[in-house]
Amino acid sequence: MAKKTTIYDIAKELNITVSTVSRALNNISTISESTRASVLATAKKLNYRPNKIASSLTSGKTYIIGILVPSAQIQFFASVIHALEKYLKSFGYSILLYQTNESLESEKNGIATLLEAQVDGIIASMSLETQDVSHFEKVKEEGKPLIIFDRTHDDLQSPNVKIDDEYAGYLATQHLLDQGYRNIAYLTTRHSIKIFRERFEGYQRALREAGIPPTPEHAVFGELTVEGGYAGTQQLMGLKNQPDAIIGGDDYVALGIIKALHEKGITPPEIGVIGFANQNFSEHIIPSLSTIDQQAIKMGKECAKMFLKIIEQSPLAENNITPVVLEPLLLARASTRRKQ
Amino acid sequence: MAKKTTIYDIAKELNITVSTVSRALNNISTISESTRASVLATAKKLNYRPNKIASSLTSGKTYIIGILVPSAQIQFFASVIHALEKYLKSFGYSILLYQTNESLESEKNGIATLLEAQVDGIIASMSLETQDVSHFEKVKEEGKPLIIFDRTHDDLQSPNVKIDDEYAGYLATQHLLDQGYRNIAYLTTRHSIKIFRERFEGYQRALREAGIPPTPEHAVFGELTVEGGYAGTQQLMGLKNQPDAIIGGDDYVALGIIKALHEKGITPPEIGVIGFANQNFSEHIIPSLSTIDQQAIKMGKECAKMFLKIIEQSPLAENNITPVVLEPLLLARASTRRKQ
Repeated sequence: MAKKTTIYDIAKELNITVSTVSRALNNISTISESTRASVLATAKKLNYRPNKIASSLTSGKTYIIGILVPSAQIQFFASVIHALEKYLKSFGYSILLYQTNESLESEKNGIATLLEAQVDGIIASMSLETQDVSHFEKVKEEGKPLIIFDRTHDDLQSPNVKIDDEYAGYLATQHLLDQGYRNIAYLTTRHSIKIFRERFEGYQRALREAGIPPTPEHAVFGELTVEGGYAGTQQLMGLKNQPDAIIGGDDYVALGIIKALHEKGITPPEIGVIGFANQNFSEHIIPSLSTIDQQAIKMGKECAKMFLKIIEQSPLAENNITPVVLEPLLLARASTRRKQ
Repeated sequence: MAKKTTIYDIAKELNITVSTVSRALNNISTISESTRASVLATAKKLNYRPNKIASSLTSGKTYIIGILVPSAQIQFFASVIHALEKYLKSFGYSILLYQTNESLESEKNGIATLLEAQVDGIIASMSLETQDVSHFEKVKEEGKPLIIFDRTHDDLQSPNVKIDDEYAGYLATQHLLDQGYRNIAYLTTRHSIKIFRERFEGYQRALREAGIPPTPEHAVFGELTVEGGYAGTQQLMGLKNQPDAIIGGDDYVALGIIKALHEKGITPPEIGVIGFANQNFSEHIIPSLSTIDQQAIKMGKECAKMFLKIIEQSPLAENNITPVVLEPLLLARASTRRKQ
């Protein structure tokens, strides 16, 4: 059976966007007559037959999807976006990004801005400031799909894709235990987004399973920055009961840990250091940094698939979408490798 | 004199976007009657008087600005965007981002997508693949301002903000000469975007001024990645005439240089290494990496100011806008510090 011609094929043939083709075929007035004529001619040439049901559902579609993230500069989000873009592009969709910079006010504005830009739906991950999530309801009120990834929230019932964060914390701690470390500290941060709490719970579970009671003074709650890692490590190294390994809340925190240790003449793995997120410098610094990979590529792809599934059925199908939970991966490198 | 009430004040008071206020005041049909009523009531309460000229120019405005960049993950672009956002936000504008991932096809699609999202104007930096720039003309055809920053192109006459890239290359090379290095290699890349060629010319000028003829085999043209830096360094260290310092085309290239040197038991500044862009890991790796700061914050602010200037006058004013050229800054750190 020959492949069915889609409006994407017409767009490609004419080197215009799918949105323009859609608007031309749906007789929307913002298209010039010459464009409309060439779209119709090409549709005929390629033997395009609109699917009646699909076309009633898709009329008014812009083929633009809004992505709302804390920052595209964070490697994890950058990779998710990249995978999302790649997958959705093959279905004729373009991506517009809005960065919240971890601000609730900016997040509210972002939802409004994306809706005003007439996106077909929104794929979002929450800011660190977000506690009340009512602004996300606007997306549903407009009948548009909303998918939440990674940073989810108990109060927001929406299709979502995340990783098993409890297991991520467990995995990092278990690896350090396997390498013979016993006095393991954790530099993290505190707030209502679940992932940080869950990772911390995984850390505590691994310790308990190894028969090691968690030491309260070894849990330091600060900022997830190089400076936060540096300050936290100075605090830890000032204790009587110094740790023999430190888990950083992310790879930037781990950079700060390594820097503070270096000033005391200590190089990992003498004290073990592991981060989260597999930032693209982690593999290349010396010593190379162990970290937990959060499966960003897979997460982006799963979000894209979920989006297509919802939009092809109808927004009402959202309620029947099963959440996707991915498993984190340990990347063991020189900064924790004591045993061969 | 009391501060004049703007539509931004009304938006803030009602906790809605400036775009919504603008649409309500301009009687555009996509606003609900209740929203329109509360906007009008608040406008009255705050004693809002529309500026007749401004309001005729601004009717139909969305207060959304499109930013098109190769990647928001590159520190330099991330910082420019951040500064732009911060400045324009105080004037009631929101930012939508489109990433080209260095692809010309994606760049064309990005311009179309942003225009379809009804942005008020576009601020862009070109992809590495871009040679023909005709797709940018569409922005002007719609009478919307277009500002190009950093990666400009001879064929595109548009208001622009850039840094003095020839001087950036000169500055990096001059610093290495000052530190006593004499055999200075350069790992860069080749294409039609001017900045890389200009930096390379600055490198050659500094060498010539020091009475050192540039060595052709010390100029390696590869990829601007960690892997590119690693491969280029292996090539250079295989030469009879080994360099005593290497300039990386960006900080990721420099990471690859340091990695390749490390495998040969060499740690900078034994061989000097300097990058470009001041990525946020550069300061924190060991040894800390010397680099050229491209004044991203200032560049973002200058783009924002230029945009406001054009949009407040009229798009026709574009032709009278003087380009802004910023000076790069040397950040000398441990990786090149031979002298105290």
